[in-house]
Amino acid sequence: MRGGSLQELGEDRLVAMLTAELRQGPRVRVGPGDDCAVLEGSGRWDFLLKTDVVVEGVHYLREAPGGKVGWKAMARAVSDVAAMGGRPVAAVVTLVLPGDREAGWLRALYRGFSRCSRRWGFDVVGGETSAAPAGSAAMINVAMLGEVERGRAVLRSGARAGDVILVTGRLGGSLRRWHLEFEPRVAEARWLARHWRPTAMMDLSDGLAQDLPRLARASGLGWQVEDERLPRRRGATVRQAWGDGEDYELLFTIAPEQAAELQECWPGEFPRLRLTAIGRMTAEAAQPPAQGGWEHFRARAD
Amino acid sequence: MRGGSLQELGEDRLVAMLTAELRQGPRVRVGPGDDCAVLEGSGRWDFLLKTDVVVEGVHYLREAPGGKVGWKAMARAVSDVAAMGGRPVAAVVTLVLPGDREAGWLRALYRGFSRCSRRWGFDVVGGETSAAPAGSAAMINVAMLGEVERGRAVLRSGARAGDVILVTGRLGGSLRRWHLEFEPRVAEARWLARHWRPTAMMDLSDGLAQDLPRLARASGLGWQVEDERLPRRRGATVRQAWGDGEDYELLFTIAPEQAAELQECWPGEFPRLRLTAIGRMTAEAAQPPAQGGWEHFRARAD
Repeated sequence: MRGGSLQELGEDRLVAMLTAELRQGPRVRVGPGDDCAVLEGSGRWDFLLKTDVVVEGVHYLREAPGGKVGWKAMARAVSDVAAMGGRPVAAVVTLVLPGDREAGWLRALYRGFSRCSRRWGFDVVGGETSAAPAGSAAMINVAMLGEVERGRAVLRSGARAGDVILVTGRLGGSLRRWHLEFEPRVAEARWLARHWRPTAMMDLSDGLAQDLPRLARASGLGWQVEDERLPRRRGATVRQAWGDGEDYELLFTIAPEQAAELQECWPGEFPRLRLTAIGRMTAEAAQPPAQGGWEHFRARAD
Repeated sequence: MRGGSLQELGEDRLVAMLTAELRQGPRVRVGPGDDCAVLEGSGRWDFLLKTDVVVEGVHYLREAPGGKVGWKAMARAVSDVAAMGGRPVAAVVTLVLPGDREAGWLRALYRGFSRCSRRWGFDVVGGETSAAPAGSAAMINVAMLGEVERGRAVLRSGARAGDVILVTGRLGGSLRRWHLEFEPRVAEARWLARHWRPTAMMDLSDGLAQDLPRLARASGLGWQVEDERLPRRRGATVRQAWGDGEDYELLFTIAPEQAAELQECWPGEFPRLRLTAIGRMTAEAAQPPAQGGWEHFRARAD
């Protein structure tokens, strides 16, 4: 490893570098690098484990309502559990807060947690708080325990050349409201995992331009996407659909012979949510970098 | 709930207030308020879930070596799992870092994680990173999944009037080195839980003056401690033994008829670690506030 600051290295390289040397014992089915870690459970279930943070000034603005920030912090972790084909079981929250924050905002924050936990049927079972030095940003970390039927977690690494790439919903323009109000695709992902066995799946949090290359890298493949097929949120450009991030939609791949049938069945199951085939996985792993998408520690490319 | 800032409310009241309204479904054996949450598992084991953060400038200084900070961040969560009588299974880490941090320090940090995970036989299965706005403190959050034999978690709430209060090791003076190098008492706690069934147990992280009243409140009791019995680290005063915090020793209670026998057996099992009876639980729940101890969001009392 070379020296240098985080800005110079970029997030993906940093995480890959740091996690490469960690012990992964016999109970670890999937270690760092997917939406969740997968651990061997007992009986019918494997465990999913995820940690995720939202930072004031990065993921939300200080003036954002506490209830929406609480929903977002929880729903992000739920979305990661969903992306494995699993369901959330229990969450624990860490708040790091400068001492001048108002208790009323915090109460609203917890109401947001609560709303999300009731909606998706899991429990928030622990809350830690710590002071932050004055001038620090507030941060809210959610750690989520989930479960998935034994051996059935859908990983990023299983795509095959020729598989069709699909996304749920619409992309881009999330910053106006969606990033604080999105609905994790739990039912959709579980239905897909149960009946269709996607070859690879993840949720779109950093934008298609960042996330699709991650899925492709994990599968050792390339990809080809037709810009004009991207399902865009109203007013969003193609560039924004690639790069805005925080879509929290499912990105998945499936064998071509199944894709057409899936697209026929989908509207019967989920009439209010669009499903769109946007391209194909290709055998050539080398790929020109996609434009845009959110990379932590680096400037936004678009 | 009234308004007001965190500083005015104090940490314990804040957490109690915020967590009171959270849903606790049928799988939750122990929700917020103990060292870990306890969830009903399947087969022989219940799950333990814990989240814990260390913040630069609060829990460690920026010039502290990365390896020691990494050890500390992990070992704190291990200590909480131990305090339930459990063992650690897997951890996930969130780093929130200003972009100017050096990659070398981070690599050392991860070596600290790794050292701790090998020592206690668990796996670090995920690492998230997020940028922090410039000027923010760095923070390292560890979420830990543990396990404990079904129905055998040792809670804070089971102490009975007349029970003897014991602590492992020595207290006070942790800031010189111990707080970055401590050894979570996993083997000791598991031996106690298996053979002696303490009525209540927790780890001492915020100092006896903060933590003993928490155990007493959870059990609906008071307590009486003889200052001269407190086992002190070399150079530490009685006041420091009460109030320095970060001892990461076990605090537990046990029926008086067992206490003497336990103290006889202990040196044969753990010859290098002191075990000291420091007082008794009393029936009077009302208690004068203990001096000192670390409370987040408030000034230190000593």
